[in-house]
Amino acid sequence: MEHIDKVIGTFEKTDEAPSVDSTRVSRAVISRLPRYHRYLRMLIEEGCLRISSSELSRRMNVTASQIRQDLNCFGGFGQQGYGYNVKYLYGKISELLGVNEGYRMVIIGAGNLGRALAGTHMFERRGIERVCMFDNDPAVVGQVMFGLQVYHIDRLEEICLAEGVDFAVMTTPREVAPAIAERLSALGIKGILNFANTELAVTRPDIIVENVHLSDPLMKFCYDLKHKKV
Amino acid sequence: MEHIDKVIGTFEKTDEAPSVDSTRVSRAVISRLPRYHRYLRMLIEEGCLRISSSELSRRMNVTASQIRQDLNCFGGFGQQGYGYNVKYLYGKISELLGVNEGYRMVIIGAGNLGRALAGTHMFERRGIERVCMFDNDPAVVGQVMFGLQVYHIDRLEEICLAEGVDFAVMTTPREVAPAIAERLSALGIKGILNFANTELAVTRPDIIVENVHLSDPLMKFCYDLKHKKV
Repeated sequence: MEHIDKVIGTFEKTDEAPSVDSTRVSRAVISRLPRYHRYLRMLIEEGCLRISSSELSRRMNVTASQIRQDLNCFGGFGQQGYGYNVKYLYGKISELLGVNEGYRMVIIGAGNLGRALAGTHMFERRGIERVCMFDNDPAVVGQVMFGLQVYHIDRLEEICLAEGVDFAVMTTPREVAPAIAERLSALGIKGILNFANTELAVTRPDIIVENVHLSDPLMKFCYDLKHKKV
Repeated sequence: MEHIDKVIGTFEKTDEAPSVDSTRVSRAVISRLPRYHRYLRMLIEEGCLRISSSELSRRMNVTASQIRQDLNCFGGFGQQGYGYNVKYLYGKISELLGVNEGYRMVIIGAGNLGRALAGTHMFERRGIERVCMFDNDPAVVGQVMFGLQVYHIDRLEEICLAEGVDFAVMTTPREVAPAIAERLSALGIKGILNFANTELAVTRPDIIVENVHLSDPLMKFCYDLKHKKV
């Protein structure tokens, strides 16, 4: 027990450990990291300090060899048989994923989806500060939703510049999203997380656009429904 | 031109073409199919009948060889140089994904996220019938939202059985999701599409659970923000 504590103690000093070289991590691994991050968070909440690749494999329903391959570059494992140091690995993955960078964001659209996102803890849990919301509907402009002031979309440039906004979460109808994206692009925002159900593209190549399609998991689900073996 | 029409004519008879053997398609390909499905739909809306793997590659920002590998098992390509028959491929992928199977679904939770999902066209576009919504809040029970009646959650079993519901979309707070999932499981529903931000698991192994985490694309986005080269 004493020995294990010593090992954990060593690995918890993440500040002193060398940074993970992001160029050595493939896109495929990156795309799987958010899921590892979620599971590691759950383990921390359960008070679990160490986990073997086989136990993590059972929980996450992926093979242990996949897990070892994916997490190889992160270190955080002591001697053979001790498993992964959960907090160390969580810290390393957080750092690589850009969690806790202190990004400041706005939500465009104060309809149902905008409110649903404003009401989650997913931003603050990742160290992201929610600045405000924008809409063009007089019925919602001026209201406060989940602690966020709703401003008229006409004030987008003024407020984003004054507040030093890093990125926008787009929840408008798809028809108006491209024009707003160009306005955000023109004012030099770093990125757009787009829930407007359209493939948004901006003219400036330096702006990150992540298009989220809620119908993609629906279709994977329909595939599983159709092909399930019962 | 006449020749191309003939080729398209041949391939559009999807009813006569042999079905795609789902056991021959890997999970990795399946997970990429919804994206192909979206792009093919856009092409059809644009009136595009044929597309080369290189043009599809440019639009989707994946390599042409990846596209050829992924779509190899679907057929739908004529002679070398003619490219893919868009409608044929769309039809084949739809069939494999279980689109237009006539599934009937209910939405659990009539809060912001439930309303946001009820207000999209993503279900009807895939031939899924939205039956009704459930909630426990007296303020919303009895209302009609986006054409859907909101019933009290106490009537879940009665209405799901009477209506022959195939699956449920879970949008409740995460704390109450597991208990409702067990009720759905007990009444023999086929699956749960879970937006309740928790890893839902039901005791019956024959029930498909798809856990959707809106924070996963957020984290991929944060990674790209942090590591972008500008």
